[in-house]
Amino acid sequence: MEQSILNILHQVAHGEKTPEQALDHLKLAPYQQLASGLCLDTNRGLRTGQGEVVFAPGKNDTQLQEATAKLADHGQPVLVTRLTQEQGLNLAQAFPQGKLCSQAGLFCLGQDLDLDPPWPSQAQVLIVTAGASDLPVALEALGTGLFFDLDIGLISDVGVAGLHRLTPHLAALQKARLLIVVAGMEGALPSVLGGMLGKPIIAVPTSVGYGVSMHGLTALAGMLSSCAPGIAVVNIDNGFGAAAMADKLLL
Amino acid sequence: MEQSILNILHQVAHGEKTPEQALDHLKLAPYQQLASGLCLDTNRGLRTGQGEVVFAPGKNDTQLQEATAKLADHGQPVLVTRLTQEQGLNLAQAFPQGKLCSQAGLFCLGQDLDLDPPWPSQAQVLIVTAGASDLPVALEALGTGLFFDLDIGLISDVGVAGLHRLTPHLAALQKARLLIVVAGMEGALPSVLGGMLGKPIIAVPTSVGYGVSMHGLTALAGMLSSCAPGIAVVNIDNGFGAAAMADKLLL
Amino acid sequence: MEQSILNILHQVAHGEKTPEQALDHLKLAPYQQLASGLCLDTNRGLRTGQGEVVFAPGKNDTQLQEATAKLADHGQPVLVTRLTQEQGLNLAQAFPQGKLCSQAGLFCLGQDLDLDPPWPSQAQVLIVTAGASDLPVALEALGTGLFFDLDIGLISDVGVAGLHRLTPHLAALQKARLLIVVAGMEGALPSVLGGMLGKPIIAVPTSVGYGVSMHGLTALAGMLSSCAPGIAVVNIDNGFGAAAMADKLLL
Amino acid sequence: MEQSILNILHQVAHGEKTPEQALDHLKLAPYQQLASGLCLDTNRGLRTGQGEVVFAPGKNDTQLQEATAKLADHGQPVLVTRLTQEQGLNLAQAFPQGKLCSQAGLFCLGQDLDLDPPWPSQAQVLIVTAGASDLPVALEALGTGLFFDLDIGLISDVGVAGLHRLTPHLAALQKARLLIVVAGMEGALPSVLGGMLGKPIIAVPTSVGYGVSMHGLTALAGMLSSCAPGIAVVNIDNGFGAAAMADKLLL
Amino acid sequence: MEQSILNILHQVAHGEKTPEQALDHLKLAPYQQLASGLCLDTNRGLRTGQGEVVFAPGKNDTQLQEATAKLADHGQPVLVTRLTQEQGLNLAQAFPQGKLCSQAGLFCLGQDLDLDPPWPSQAQVLIVTAGASDLPVALEALGTGLFFDLDIGLISDVGVAGLHRLTPHLAALQKARLLIVVAGMEGALPSVLGGMLGKPIIAVPTSVGYGVSMHGLTALAGMLSSCAPGIAVVNIDNGFGAAAMADKLLL
Amino acid sequence: MEQSILNILHQVAHGEKTPEQALDHLKLAPYQQLASGLCLDTNRGLRTGQGEVVFAPGKNDTQLQEATAKLADHGQPVLVTRLTQEQGLNLAQAFPQGKLCSQAGLFCLGQDLDLDPPWPSQAQVLIVTAGASDLPVALEALGTGLFFDLDIGLISDVGVAGLHRLTPHLAALQKARLLIVVAGMEGALPSVLGGMLGKPIIAVPTSVGYGVSMHGLTALAGMLSSCAPGIAVVNIDNGFGAAAMADKLLL
Amino acid sequence: MEQSILNILHQVAHGEKTPEQALDHLKLAPYQQLASGLCLDTNRGLRTGQGEVVFAPGKNDTQLQEATAKLADHGQPVLVTRLTQEQGLNLAQAFPQGKLCSQAGLFCLGQDLDLDPPWPSQAQVLIVTAGASDLPVALEALGTGLFFDLDIGLISDVGVAGLHRLTPHLAALQKARLLIVVAGMEGALPSVLGGMLGKPIIAVPTSVGYGVSMHGLTALAGMLSSCAPGIAVVNIDNGFGAAAMADKLLL
Amino acid sequence: MEQSILNILHQVAHGEKTPEQALDHLKLAPYQQLASGLCLDTNRGLRTGQGEVVFAPGKNDTQLQEATAKLADHGQPVLVTRLTQEQGLNLAQAFPQGKLCSQAGLFCLGQDLDLDPPWPSQAQVLIVTAGASDLPVALEALGTGLFFDLDIGLISDVGVAGLHRLTPHLAALQKARLLIVVAGMEGALPSVLGGMLGKPIIAVPTSVGYGVSMHGLTALAGMLSSCAPGIAVVNIDNGFGAAAMADKLLL
Repeated sequence: MEQSILNILHQVAHGEKTPEQALDHLKLAPYQQLASGLCLDTNRGLRTGQGEVVFAPGKNDTQLQEATAKLADHGQPVLVTRLTQEQGLNLAQAFPQGKLCSQAGLFCLGQDLDLDPPWPSQAQVLIVTAGASDLPVALEALGTGLFFDLDIGLISDVGVAGLHRLTPHLAALQKARLLIVVAGMEGALPSVLGGMLGKPIIAVPTSVGYGVSMHGLTALAGMLSSCAPGIAVVNIDNGFGAAAMADKLLL
Repeated sequence: MEQSILNILHQVAHGEKTPEQALDHLKLAPYQQLASGLCLDTNRGLRTGQGEVVFAPGKNDTQLQEATAKLADHGQPVLVTRLTQEQGLNLAQAFPQGKLCSQAGLFCLGQDLDLDPPWPSQAQVLIVTAGASDLPVALEALGTGLFFDLDIGLISDVGVAGLHRLTPHLAALQKARLLIVVAGMEGALPSVLGGMLGKPIIAVPTSVGYGVSMHGLTALAGMLSSCAPGIAVVNIDNGFGAAAMADKLLL
Repeated sequence: MEQSILNILHQVAHGEKTPEQALDHLKLAPYQQLASGLCLDTNRGLRTGQGEVVFAPGKNDTQLQEATAKLADHGQPVLVTRLTQEQGLNLAQAFPQGKLCSQAGLFCLGQDLDLDPPWPSQAQVLIVTAGASDLPVALEALGTGLFFDLDIGLISDVGVAGLHRLTPHLAALQKARLLIVVAGMEGALPSVLGGMLGKPIIAVPTSVGYGVSMHGLTALAGMLSSCAPGIAVVNIDNGFGAAAMADKLLL
Repeated sequence: MEQSILNILHQVAHGEKTPEQALDHLKLAPYQQLASGLCLDTNRGLRTGQGEVVFAPGKNDTQLQEATAKLADHGQPVLVTRLTQEQGLNLAQAFPQGKLCSQAGLFCLGQDLDLDPPWPSQAQVLIVTAGASDLPVALEALGTGLFFDLDIGLISDVGVAGLHRLTPHLAALQKARLLIVVAGMEGALPSVLGGMLGKPIIAVPTSVGYGVSMHGLTALAGMLSSCAPGIAVVNIDNGFGAAAMADKLLL
Repeated sequence: MEQSILNILHQVAHGEKTPEQALDHLKLAPYQQLASGLCLDTNRGLRTGQGEVVFAPGKNDTQLQEATAKLADHGQPVLVTRLTQEQGLNLAQAFPQGKLCSQAGLFCLGQDLDLDPPWPSQAQVLIVTAGASDLPVALEALGTGLFFDLDIGLISDVGVAGLHRLTPHLAALQKARLLIVVAGMEGALPSVLGGMLGKPIIAVPTSVGYGVSMHGLTALAGMLSSCAPGIAVVNIDNGFGAAAMADKLLL
Repeated sequence: MEQSILNILHQVAHGEKTPEQALDHLKLAPYQQLASGLCLDTNRGLRTGQGEVVFAPGKNDTQLQEATAKLADHGQPVLVTRLTQEQGLNLAQAFPQGKLCSQAGLFCLGQDLDLDPPWPSQAQVLIVTAGASDLPVALEALGTGLFFDLDIGLISDVGVAGLHRLTPHLAALQKARLLIVVAGMEGALPSVLGGMLGKPIIAVPTSVGYGVSMHGLTALAGMLSSCAPGIAVVNIDNGFGAAAMADKLLL
Repeated sequence: MEQSILNILHQVAHGEKTPEQALDHLKLAPYQQLASGLCLDTNRGLRTGQGEVVFAPGKNDTQLQEATAKLADHGQPVLVTRLTQEQGLNLAQAFPQGKLCSQAGLFCLGQDLDLDPPWPSQAQVLIVTAGASDLPVALEALGTGLFFDLDIGLISDVGVAGLHRLTPHLAALQKARLLIVVAGMEGALPSVLGGMLGKPIIAVPTSVGYGVSMHGLTALAGMLSSCAPGIAVVNIDNGFGAAAMADKLLL
Repeated sequence: MEQSILNILHQVAHGEKTPEQALDHLKLAPYQQLASGLCLDTNRGLRTGQGEVVFAPGKNDTQLQEATAKLADHGQPVLVTRLTQEQGLNLAQAFPQGKLCSQAGLFCLGQDLDLDPPWPSQAQVLIVTAGASDLPVALEALGTGLFFDLDIGLISDVGVAGLHRLTPHLAALQKARLLIVVAGMEGALPSVLGGMLGKPIIAVPTSVGYGVSMHGLTALAGMLSSCAPGIAVVNIDNGFGAAAMADKLLL
């Protein structure tokens, strides 16, 4: 960024740009205003290393389609997250060449995301889920990771009520550079893995559970309170955020 | 008010009113009891400078229509807020000359509210939203401001994940007298604008987000905890309240 | 209880008691009103199998000493719980033959409680703590269990950050009839032990931790949300309650 | 477990197994990976004394049916809990020989659970409910207890607003070894029974109530704060957990 | 109030007051501004039937003494509530003829409040406490009731862990017109008494307890959620409010 | 109650009852077990002065109809509360001679409740609502009060945003013995009326509002924190409880 | 700001600055790094219209004195807020020419703040407090307003328990442009004033109260939920923020 | 770990170990039981890559000194965290060769931690604080990072109220591999940096703030709700945890 400012200043120094032109250039906003009221951050990829991803909640079908189309116009694959069943179907109808992954609430255009089991169980980034009910969140993380071209896998249903199910995966877990651990209810799995393995863990609490699980707040608070070092936490059900963090860490 | 009491007392002193008549007059309530059980505050405009606005939640169609009709009888435009889709359509059917703005949950009779984009991006009062998902709340503020004859505009989708989108609007923001900043999730935009611009800000947290956003409580608490001075906050999703506050401040 | 009522009724039938005397007898309260305003439940032991234990908070020294003395008058050992440092020292001064266990907040008169390490590591009831910071609560449970003549032991500092420390205790844990598991922070230890061992567990959350541990609420909620069956929970820091429950279960 | 490891080591010592074979054996996971992504803990019964029970929330019909079929393949009865109306009907259609108990959200295959009133009012484990609205939770406990072959009964609708309704059941309550007390709203019944009877109580708060009952949190907190000793608590509406705890305690 | 306005209007009609004098009179505020910044509501007794009581928190010694002296100047007894130990001693030194009741946090000038046990156990208004730790709150209620000349008594330490202690008091409880029931921890006593007696109950939750009692919030929520009708609740530890409510109800 | 026990004892003394018969009599439960699992407290009216009222939530149509029919069999009017739209219509169909008040969620058999406006505005007990949205709760209170034969009225829509609407009702408010004040949002009306009138107030918070109103918790907490004495509070939306309390207070 | 960038660009165009010099200039931070680790925002006044104010919590005496001295070096008056008693005395000793206002937690150097009563009761900005216990917060607002050269006054102790105390101030309140309303407990005063006067109100909840007042959260939530339009809210006890907001609004 | 088991199995196969010796070896716990009741995890470094760090809260001086001495006996440097002022001084007195950093609550033996300003402002891991009040938490992170031999620096006091203070650090921030961002109050700084820089961020909320900041919960929830991707969060004030996570990520 500093370099590009310097370039512009040199152009001014060399008379290639007037000061007024330079100012205009400095003010040129790298975004695109859409007719439906949205404002796309079209070169976020340049600035932060990850392109803008469309967050579906609160957007109507027109806005979702316009955002998808405009981002696709820039020639990059497009990912839409947190789609409801209905939003997803409408989007898939509008872009039949895209791929809808309903369970994960994802739609992807311009890249082929394969989220069906069996999943890779050895990878640089391994997603681990405590229970089968945590799969939608784990799949959001898997899909996001694949979208960001991560070497990413998924081991499911190995929670603390039956920890021995982890045994055949221990070698793979030890070889991974980073774990994404997805758990609801009391959210104890990140603590246990953190204590056993010493790998850095991005913990994803899920809203699985009832009563005092309080829609994931208990798992979230438990993960943040963990007595094992090497755990950082993202929002409840935020599989996207975990994969995005993993991507940035491994860049 | 004191003057009007004094007038009545002079009338008593001059024998123009008996004490009993004066008492009746002093007791004359400036409101109207409706058949459906509502009690309209018909001269709130005189007392507080803003006429009564109809709050739709919990009211049935009969009550909404009676309230709208009676307020219209007083010859003033009528605004109904927080309408559900169904309430809104029924009201629009009952008063075809009125205007329904579904996304904002507003219905207006006797005044023409135009809430379609593009919106004015320079005004005395500028509404700024962090994301496109915050638009319903921003439009409630915009519609309310227009109803109160404010010089009001709207800049959308310029949140902290891509602050450079603010750049082309900096001059307009500096010229505004007051900002209404609408944001969900972590609600950081008012802090950032407060630190950059020094303008007074009415911050409106929205319920956009999930998990630990807790239906807007996190954005609300964040805005109230802001380290930047010159920020005051209204209830979650309360676009109406922000515009009403702006109106009173600029009177 | 039914039998004693029947006895009284027979005495009435046989003229050994007048109806009025019988009524007085039925009304005779098995308690003792103290001068300091307390009302001791002196035959709670008969009714519920456990004598009344003195709860110290909010009581002044006079009340604590009077309660201790009166219960001792009934010839039974006396246990006082949740003593502050100062309350404890004053009570120990008043009853030099008693035993004060400061770390556990306990004072005992008429029975010798030995709470010093090393503790028995094999017993019918085994207390297990996650960390050394949980010891005050574990010692309250140990002291209470000893007071109730339980066969009770204590294994300390074997939390999920280093589960292998459990290894040498696995045989003893498998032989125990009941575990009392004491943990703060995220409170994951009961889940892990429940999944591994299948023993019934009384889980005791502690207020150890900071920030989002929220004085034990996170550990409490985590234990209640556990995905492992066979866990029931008592109040935060309630070592007394866990031991009392164990005593009732093993009667 | 120690014995089985020792056996394997002896086989290695005697050349009956190569070290590599022994390692494989030690790594042999006692679970079964399903095509739908679930991982069944098939010998949990051996390890913890209670077979794996299928938790329905978040699972689709395919997963529920596959899990039910696979567990049935191991020749043991299968219990599915927390079924929605729709999940239950689909499961009952897939396994017509099974039994669906809609009010309790339970489905059982391979064992006949009879949950219709009148229920046994004398048993080793007695479930007591405060109100009729607490019945779904109580029936989940009853069905789970029957599945685990407990001697279990149910006394309904005897809450503190009319405690005299307990009178005819006092003898049975005194004879029981353990009470499961189910109550919503303020959740006072466990405290009252604990004070009167001295029996160990597993308290189950329910989400019955409104307003400040906060979906069972008030009953939960009240039960945990009880001034009567001998009470331990499970999660809100967790009838399954109470019966599983009772089963483990009485083994 | 209406009558007094009418009187003034008649005086104007009869020329006994000019309109301006009348206005002044109508504006004459029945309060007294103190040098220390306080504004006493000196004729609150006339308006609401209960004189102003001084709330001590946040006031310095000067303000407390000035308020006490000024209210005493109006010839009425003065009650100061929620005094800290230190505030109380300073006030007692300033007004040696007054009476300080430290445990209740009360100071009274111009009336003799006797709060020492034994307390009357038969009265129109009976205060009932669950435990001895609730006494400070009960004594605040007792002192306030005596200050308002209520026929008020106090029965202590009869909570649900030993309900039989209520037996000798049943006749008195049945004769009372109103009960004030004071309880901490789970706060079950009002529900139990409401179910047994059918008397109207003002329930006072106390901050007695620890952990999930959450400084009285659990008792408060439990009382509000009670399944027994005829219970209304005041703030945590608000013995004053309960007695003030009782006084207004029995006027 | 004591008298009836004494009578039985005299019968034993006179040989009119054997001790065993007396015991049976003392154990005779004044309730009725229903086939659908409910247990009716049929002489609650004798014991507490108010007959049992049927609480609809969580009961199926069979249970509601059986309870209604059995209570009607005892020759007393029956009130069912908190009916959903669907429960209410089914009940009205089953008992066509009964009266359904949908807005209040009430059904009454054997007594004619008229809840249509205009409502009496002068009565011993006056219900006052802040807004029209609070009417469902106010009508539950009105219907309950009429069911208990209270002299009860209702003044609607006079909240703090237009307090002058109270003026014509001041005389009636001053003449009432008790006010039931119903308000949502910030719940300020009880404080204001308490400060102005000095009448005892039963405050009913409602779930009217959005965002930080938190389903009535804010109004509830505000009413409990009120600086005006003479206010006691019931659960959120608990119009029934307020009227039941009023009935007991005025007995 | 744009102008200053343009100036620099012109200097580059005219060869008065090399591009590298320009870049340095653009990077020149308008702040001052202190030896004690603080980083002062020395030209915040230029940027936002209000100079940096020192927030005392968490700073040691060295840091407070260095910050005070450095800001004073820039020739502007300095305000320090939220000082503890001890911090304040140490600062006053270090800068004897400054003025310490202990009750408000303020220290001011280079300007004379007079916060002693009687306070101006007519001003452009009027602070109104509900009770005398709210004075520390009101004085923080008053001192801050005076520091910012506002025309500001203070009316104390006129809360809803005695609203008539407002009467003599009605004319002044009507003449003010903006009200700052400070209240604890239920925080009803802003609603009442908003309904009566129609003035814009900055509401400041205070932590005055106990129990369910929850350290000001109840007042805060009540103010945000207010049914009266024209109210915006700042953080609990944030008198500084209210005055800073007022200052920005009246610029 | 698998390798070491295989080695042991080979030794058994070769007769170098009897099966019983092998079992003992497998059971050999890599921990040390201390006389004071602690159980040190002495080879945690081998297992997880980071040695055990002593957590001071709840430990008495004897326990702290014994733990410190025993860990030092293993020849590795020792870090003690979260020391109170008093604990720290006693420890420093016991080990005069160690280094106490009071502001950070750290004590280190066997390694020299230098935490005095000026701190390195260019490093692989850069700690950034919003305000000077966040320094204690930032210094805990810095000290921990240095203890783990991280290349770590610290930039202080550059929060959103004056973001331009970041300007001179932009190059360093862009060159860092990982940011640790420490902020209290509304906790907006991680969002802003995440949006600007695209670097992975470990966000550390602090308890700096008052009122609705709720001891850091607001900052925590805000950071978790952030709209910028690439942020993961640790517990409130958990500088240690952030540095430990950074260390694991950069291994």
